[in-house]
Amino acid sequence: MRSPIPDYLTDALRSVAADTSGATADYIPELAQADPDRLAAALCTVDGHVYSAGDADVEFSIQSISKPFVYALALADRGFDEVLSKVWVEPSGDSFNQISLEPESGRPRNPMINAGALVATSLSGPPGAGADQRFERIVDGLSAFAGRRLEVDEAVYESELHHAYRNRALANMLRAHDIIAEDPLVAVAGYTRQCSLLVTTDDLAVMAATLANRGVNPVTGRPVVSAPVVRQVLSVMSTCGMYDGAGDWMTRVGVPAKSGVSGGLIGALPGQAGIATFSPRLDRHGNSVRGVDLFQRFTADMGMHLMDVPGTAREAIADRYVDGDGPDAIEVIELQGDLRFAAAEHVVREFEVRPPVTSSILLDLARIGTIDDVGRRMLLEAVRRLTIDGHEVFVLDPDQVLPDPDPGTGGRITVVDDRGQVRQR
Amino acid sequence: MRSPIPDYLTDALRSVAADTSGATADYIPELAQADPDRLAAALCTVDGHVYSAGDADVEFSIQSISKPFVYALALADRGFDEVLSKVWVEPSGDSFNQISLEPESGRPRNPMINAGALVATSLSGPPGAGADQRFERIVDGLSAFAGRRLEVDEAVYESELHHAYRNRALANMLRAHDIIAEDPLVAVAGYTRQCSLLVTTDDLAVMAATLANRGVNPVTGRPVVSAPVVRQVLSVMSTCGMYDGAGDWMTRVGVPAKSGVSGGLIGALPGQAGIATFSPRLDRHGNSVRGVDLFQRFTADMGMHLMDVPGTAREAIADRYVDGDGPDAIEVIELQGDLRFAAAEHVVREFEVRPPVTSSILLDLARIGTIDDVGRRMLLEAVRRLTIDGHEVFVLDPDQVLPDPDPGTGGRITVVDDRGQVRQR
Amino acid sequence: MRSPIPDYLTDALRSVAADTSGATADYIPELAQADPDRLAAALCTVDGHVYSAGDADVEFSIQSISKPFVYALALADRGFDEVLSKVWVEPSGDSFNQISLEPESGRPRNPMINAGALVATSLSGPPGAGADQRFERIVDGLSAFAGRRLEVDEAVYESELHHAYRNRALANMLRAHDIIAEDPLVAVAGYTRQCSLLVTTDDLAVMAATLANRGVNPVTGRPVVSAPVVRQVLSVMSTCGMYDGAGDWMTRVGVPAKSGVSGGLIGALPGQAGIATFSPRLDRHGNSVRGVDLFQRFTADMGMHLMDVPGTAREAIADRYVDGDGPDAIEVIELQGDLRFAAAEHVVREFEVRPPVTSSILLDLARIGTIDDVGRRMLLEAVRRLTIDGHEVFVLDPDQVLPDPDPGTGGRITVVDDRGQVRQR
Amino acid sequence: MRSPIPDYLTDALRSVAADTSGATADYIPELAQADPDRLAAALCTVDGHVYSAGDADVEFSIQSISKPFVYALALADRGFDEVLSKVWVEPSGDSFNQISLEPESGRPRNPMINAGALVATSLSGPPGAGADQRFERIVDGLSAFAGRRLEVDEAVYESELHHAYRNRALANMLRAHDIIAEDPLVAVAGYTRQCSLLVTTDDLAVMAATLANRGVNPVTGRPVVSAPVVRQVLSVMSTCGMYDGAGDWMTRVGVPAKSGVSGGLIGALPGQAGIATFSPRLDRHGNSVRGVDLFQRFTADMGMHLMDVPGTAREAIADRYVDGDGPDAIEVIELQGDLRFAAAEHVVREFEVRPPVTSSILLDLARIGTIDDVGRRMLLEAVRRLTIDGHEVFVLDPDQVLPDPDPGTGGRITVVDDRGQVRQR
Repeated sequence: MRSPIPDYLTDALRSVAADTSGATADYIPELAQADPDRLAAALCTVDGHVYSAGDADVEFSIQSISKPFVYALALADRGFDEVLSKVWVEPSGDSFNQISLEPESGRPRNPMINAGALVATSLSGPPGAGADQRFERIVDGLSAFAGRRLEVDEAVYESELHHAYRNRALANMLRAHDIIAEDPLVAVAGYTRQCSLLVTTDDLAVMAATLANRGVNPVTGRPVVSAPVVRQVLSVMSTCGMYDGAGDWMTRVGVPAKSGVSGGLIGALPGQAGIATFSPRLDRHGNSVRGVDLFQRFTADMGMHLMDVPGTAREAIADRYVDGDGPDAIEVIELQGDLRFAAAEHVVREFEVRPPVTSSILLDLARIGTIDDVGRRMLLEAVRRLTIDGHEVFVLDPDQVLPDPDPGTGGRITVVDDRGQVRQR
Repeated sequence: MRSPIPDYLTDALRSVAADTSGATADYIPELAQADPDRLAAALCTVDGHVYSAGDADVEFSIQSISKPFVYALALADRGFDEVLSKVWVEPSGDSFNQISLEPESGRPRNPMINAGALVATSLSGPPGAGADQRFERIVDGLSAFAGRRLEVDEAVYESELHHAYRNRALANMLRAHDIIAEDPLVAVAGYTRQCSLLVTTDDLAVMAATLANRGVNPVTGRPVVSAPVVRQVLSVMSTCGMYDGAGDWMTRVGVPAKSGVSGGLIGALPGQAGIATFSPRLDRHGNSVRGVDLFQRFTADMGMHLMDVPGTAREAIADRYVDGDGPDAIEVIELQGDLRFAAAEHVVREFEVRPPVTSSILLDLARIGTIDDVGRRMLLEAVRRLTIDGHEVFVLDPDQVLPDPDPGTGGRITVVDDRGQVRQR
Repeated sequence: MRSPIPDYLTDALRSVAADTSGATADYIPELAQADPDRLAAALCTVDGHVYSAGDADVEFSIQSISKPFVYALALADRGFDEVLSKVWVEPSGDSFNQISLEPESGRPRNPMINAGALVATSLSGPPGAGADQRFERIVDGLSAFAGRRLEVDEAVYESELHHAYRNRALANMLRAHDIIAEDPLVAVAGYTRQCSLLVTTDDLAVMAATLANRGVNPVTGRPVVSAPVVRQVLSVMSTCGMYDGAGDWMTRVGVPAKSGVSGGLIGALPGQAGIATFSPRLDRHGNSVRGVDLFQRFTADMGMHLMDVPGTAREAIADRYVDGDGPDAIEVIELQGDLRFAAAEHVVREFEVRPPVTSSILLDLARIGTIDDVGRRMLLEAVRRLTIDGHEVFVLDPDQVLPDPDPGTGGRITVVDDRGQVRQR
Repeated sequence: MRSPIPDYLTDALRSVAADTSGATADYIPELAQADPDRLAAALCTVDGHVYSAGDADVEFSIQSISKPFVYALALADRGFDEVLSKVWVEPSGDSFNQISLEPESGRPRNPMINAGALVATSLSGPPGAGADQRFERIVDGLSAFAGRRLEVDEAVYESELHHAYRNRALANMLRAHDIIAEDPLVAVAGYTRQCSLLVTTDDLAVMAATLANRGVNPVTGRPVVSAPVVRQVLSVMSTCGMYDGAGDWMTRVGVPAKSGVSGGLIGALPGQAGIATFSPRLDRHGNSVRGVDLFQRFTADMGMHLMDVPGTAREAIADRYVDGDGPDAIEVIELQGDLRFAAAEHVVREFEVRPPVTSSILLDLARIGTIDDVGRRMLLEAVRRLTIDGHEVFVLDPDQVLPDPDPGTGGRITVVDDRGQVRQR
């Protein structure tokens, strides 16, 4: 069987191909002369499979899509406190080329606008790193997100640097406020160089998937940044990633995203996939016209919207019965599905409403998909309370979905691999 | 066994109780004289169970927490196009008492600020409804969200109306721009009356849970608004619900939320729960001090943050093997966990990478939790392609988790309740 | 001889008559249907002679031109401190329909924008005056400026009041900030009524001339407001009178001015004349197209620009000589021209550089035009010092241009009407 | 006799000396370490006499007071059209360190804020001038205003340049908008160097007096810029010279002014004097605390407020009578005072209301002070009309106060030096 996903992506590209509205960025010749008809889409799953269609292996400069990733590096390298003290997290309501510094402090409103991105660049790498060492850290970091060594397009770099008056203005303003400590020209050079890194649409999908996968590159398996960093980056992308259209994007697409002036666009669907598109013509907000259209289709077709509630789930308790009788009788509770807060709550409520009638209890986790941290803690607390109530609790967990099964003071748990182990006790 | 959740809520209240910072709203005596020590939290699951602690049955005026619900009613009553043409969805970057109208059109930036809320009120009920009929619609609608008949606090209403100069200013400005068509004083009276509806913390948890439950009140089982309306409302809450602190809230709490000047605060965790807190002392943003603190604890403790990626899930394919041999051999694929995009993709990829070797195939869905729409469509498309490839596909679905199992042109599927049915064919 | 001034005005009107650009205000039918071809100019001298050309006796509603005059009444009735605490004097940089309140206090930025004008209206008349009494004060005051009883155009009043949503918004906002204390609807009604007073271009010229004449109506001779009030009003007109074009107006016209939406425009040239024009078509700033053009001509032709420095003046000392000899010798100093600071400084310097050689001195003021307060004080101080130096000082002042000729401690002065009186002593 | 003016200035300094509020600028050590107790005032008359008191010969860097003078040079060197296209003339309502560029074009709002001053610097000297040549022009120009060769304080220059991040930000922003065409660093260096020129309070008084004297340095007699340039510069100073306090300054002081961060403050009273003060402690607007206080005293004491209307002037017509009888009878009209618009109008009206009764007429100008251009034109037009009416007009003008006495087509005039000349004809 051939997977339907490539067909789907190809169909999606075809459906938007005729739209030639918008225009390529024209502030440097390298972008102005980009082939405006390039079109690509790629999707990388959290287990590292990449689907793509169109010109997904064509390289282009990453531009502003570097921002969330360098922000992630800064958070990793300097910690939340230092980074937040120098670049905040509120949407600015301004378009991409606004200054958007806080009036008194000069702190940029968020790291997705240029001023904030300059700060993130300045905070990458260890304190005191020189320009070269810092840039090495950025290339290494973004390459780790992409899963391959990225290279700078020197022509784009030179051309952008030549026209970077606005960014020099921002960097000087940040220096005037002591938000950055270094020579503003060095900061701009570093940021411009980071924007000139060449990526393909496939690369971008992998980079986005690394965010969707708690910071672990799903292709290489290599951890790049920690889960708290990813959470911060995705949060900021969701409120600030699409410039002055963040609210509109949230209602219509509902996926943390970031666009770039060269025509790229990424979205990260936590726990599921990273998606990227490429089409160089931009709308008046500076976002890729066909890219935005594609993401709206993906949201509708793939159920990606963060606020979409899945249809009513199957009950967490698949079955409950007493097995055997007399002193050997054991009450079995078979769980199923994913065990996050809602399902765990359902299980503990079941025990409260209908307390077990036998001395021994078996929780059967064999049909459980995922257990998250709160699901685990609630289940263990229930076990602890059942122990205190006088029950002996067995857990059938052949695949070890319940890590570190310690219910805490007063609780006791016996993990078994098959039911026979219970009987043998 | 006693459920640990009430204990958790009680502990959470105790942990914040000592914080007496902030102050009650003082613009009307009714709010200024509210007992500042009141403290409550409630949680309502998507199957309608309400946990609560503290003063959860004390009534107070709903104030701004009415905004998302009346916005939902307006969307339901007038449709997205009309509503969006008169109130937009972008965060304003302004505090709650700013004007925040778009410069030319006068369209309010979003329905969570007062100007936008006035518009939502004016768009509730059928076109041409009089003030009384419209207010009846609003009371009915909010009562349906809460699951009980809500009543107006007439003293609060009279007092607020007496001081509603700012809202009258906004309504006149909206009328000047033809954003509202009615007498501005009537619009303000309607909005003020809606804000004076009395609710308890328990009520608010149920109202939030109705949003978390695709618009169906989980206690009464009654549908209140449609899923697309809910998606819109939750999206706007996530970017605009916390005034000028939307980005900070998203990073630190990560739940669509709304606060009110009387001290209430709600959050809706799609598919899982509605949560509400009550504590009348406000911070300088106008949000309840202890309410914000509680929500930060809930997020950390209950894994509610929208951007939190659950730990790596168990494989969607629990097992795969050929049962029997010769002409009766059938390849069995046992699925587990929730089947959303990522899991469904994994399953279809499995069929591509390792095509089935037998003529008949059995997909065992007995351990599946939830299947969402994209999961269902992908699974059926895989079945269609397998059929075309010459396989006969059986699906074991004892609990009917796969609705409307029609794989489309060229596909065929046979749903069975137990494995015996396959063999009997 | 026929005065050339009427010919000049007629020529000026003719030169702009062909310009039909711009459009009449269209927010109420009464203004939209005004005859757009009306054209008038009038000039009133500070001794009360009115020249006019075109439709100078056609009545139209005064609109925003009432603002500086009502501001003058408020200053007169409540004093500078109270008025300044409630409406400030800075240009807003905003167009006429902006809100322009100071962020925290809600104080309007100046009294030439609507918000500030509403405050000025509310501060007219004695504290505690009812709406009727206050309006009576405003009609009396503006009538005193005009020199005839002004009447309200009731149709314009009713129509404007019907559409006054924006002003109601402003008044409610001001009430919310306690900048006004009364019912916002009453404030708007009063302001709207004041804007509906009917004036002719001739009236406006007299009103402006009253400002140019230190607050005394030059036609009726009746004092209307004090000189300090006039100074304040003219200052505010010069920085805030032309909305968002105040700086441009100052460079190109250089006369304190105010325009109105019905097509009127006034300018006050301190000490010289009041000027008014009328032409209903407005530019995008809301100023009369042909009115602005006429004022630019007047400035160029009549040397009205405040920053225009007259060509080098004739020496203040016309002649100086010793008359007679022996003990009867007297040194005569003949002064000429206007004696303001610069001329007075020249005179006192003369005495320092070339001290008088005779015991008696005669200051001949017969050819002096004006002496202002500083000129008078400096001349008397010089006399005092000359006395102390041992001189006897006579002043020839046949027309009493030097009021209250007391040189203070140690000084002595003898005023004579002709030279013969000196000799007779 | 000793002039009272030095005593007045000394008294004024003494009256403010005790006020030690405010603080010296602290962004560079050279300013931070300035002696905060320095205090000086100087006044230069339009005939070039300089009075001063206190530390009036102490040098300090001119800072922002260079702005109006360099703006004057730019207007002189490039013309109004080019300069206005690149820097506008509206008050910004912003404090001195705001960016204040027009949103679309990037044109600075006025030349008194830093962004606009950078543009003025860039437009000084001939097009295409190198940095050195341009700076030479600026030093020459400002030296011509001051009447002596000014020198750069190299230590201040180096220190300011080292900290000029904000100005570099502005220059880069201007370059991004193509408002300046050169290397932003070169523009900032030029502007910083101009701000580092050393001046004394006496120098500043002379510079201001040059503006008050139609652009001619009253001490050296050398023309520096033209009258239209001066008018433009004074206009802009009056609306934009005191940052965000322009309206307040206009009401309270009423003199075109400019302040600098080193503690200087200048005011120019057109046609009368230039005034300067020096006191390094600044208020929160960045203006010298004691300087502002001194200027308020000067305004009150010296009648400098532009909106102050002198008391009622003496009649322009001093006397009117028929001299002689029979065919030799001649009607004599003796004029007095200054002949600007108002007085000239009075004279021409006299001829209309009471036409001369004799064939010959003598206008006696011997007691006239100043005649400005409009006065001259109106008087000549009256003569022309009298000629046409059949009169023969003699003008007694012993001191040639009426330049170029040609009444135009149909008019005839005979200028005489004494009355005898009339009789001899």
